[in-house]
Amino acid sequence: MHDEPEVAVLRLGHRPGRDERMTTHVGLTARALGADRVWIPDNAGQSKETVEDITDRFGGPFSVELTDSPKAILRDWDGRIVHLTMYGERIQDVEDEIHTAHRDGGEPILVVVGSEKVSFDVYEEADWNVGVTNQPHSEVAGLAVFLDRLFEGHELEREWANADRRVVPMETGKRVEPVEDEG
Amino acid sequence: MHDEPEVAVLRLGHRPGRDERMTTHVGLTARALGADRVWIPDNAGQSKETVEDITDRFGGPFSVELTDSPKAILRDWDGRIVHLTMYGERIQDVEDEIHTAHRDGGEPILVVVGSEKVSFDVYEEADWNVGVTNQPHSEVAGLAVFLDRLFEGHELEREWANADRRVVPMETGKRVEPVEDEG
Repeated sequence: MHDEPEVAVLRLGHRPGRDERMTTHVGLTARALGADRVWIPDNAGQSKETVEDITDRFGGPFSVELTDSPKAILRDWDGRIVHLTMYGERIQDVEDEIHTAHRDGGEPILVVVGSEKVSFDVYEEADWNVGVTNQPHSEVAGLAVFLDRLFEGHELEREWANADRRVVPMETGKRVEPVEDEG
Repeated sequence: MHDEPEVAVLRLGHRPGRDERMTTHVGLTARALGADRVWIPDNAGQSKETVEDITDRFGGPFSVELTDSPKAILRDWDGRIVHLTMYGERIQDVEDEIHTAHRDGGEPILVVVGSEKVSFDVYEEADWNVGVTNQPHSEVAGLAVFLDRLFEGHELEREWANADRRVVPMETGKRVEPVEDEG
């Protein structure tokens, strides 16, 4: 997010049809909650289009890339890797360490979110396996809570560039305004 | 959650097939992140079964109920209503007020999460329309961040009753232990 070291999200696994919306929601959540980019599996082209369409309309910067080799991304990542899993260490126990690496150490963070089954390599490749609770729930929920805690709520204040519209927060009702082109 | 006033979640709308996993993830997220119960539409019986199965195995208390009349639930709710919507007031601006009502005022909270289209009645019925960002993303992500902030992380420490298994947090790997019956 802006002046901080990069935060990227890697979505592992995608079963066309069944996972369409989950993968899309991973991408949209990554964008809305302050990540700089997301990699999704190369069979999830529809999700890529949806997230890019939202970025075109509501702003960025945010990039979505397809990958046919998540292993290469894990191997080549120049920074720290956080794998979100219900089997991992408790987020409340490790978040300070991750903060320190990211903000004080200037380390980019790759956040890995799986679908049903994640290979053991990923657990080994990760610097931290982190449980947002050790309960089964949702990779989208886990990602959201993780990012909100990583950025300590600052992601809620971010500005969006090159948006063509903006939602105006309201007590009741819906208001969307066009955004003047600021360059 | 335990000694606090009740927090319930109401899921509006469910298109069978298309919304199966989103509705299930709303239910599982509500459970994992400290809500006491969830209502889901009566055509989402499959999601109910999945969430109940997880509760049987990993513990509770947590209840899942089907409803054919979300309007009646909104009308009859004895407490405050928070509707999560990208058009609402910014969570960072209203969360203190909601905290105060819930904890100091002892008010039960009903958190309403929609699917695609939410009728205007809901905006009017709500005490707060709240945006977890004013960006389009995921009702599951919005619910997760909202609950984590409402409970200020205490939901991560909750104990589970009547579980038959428990995940043991680990740096690397997966460990699930049977739980002795504590009654």
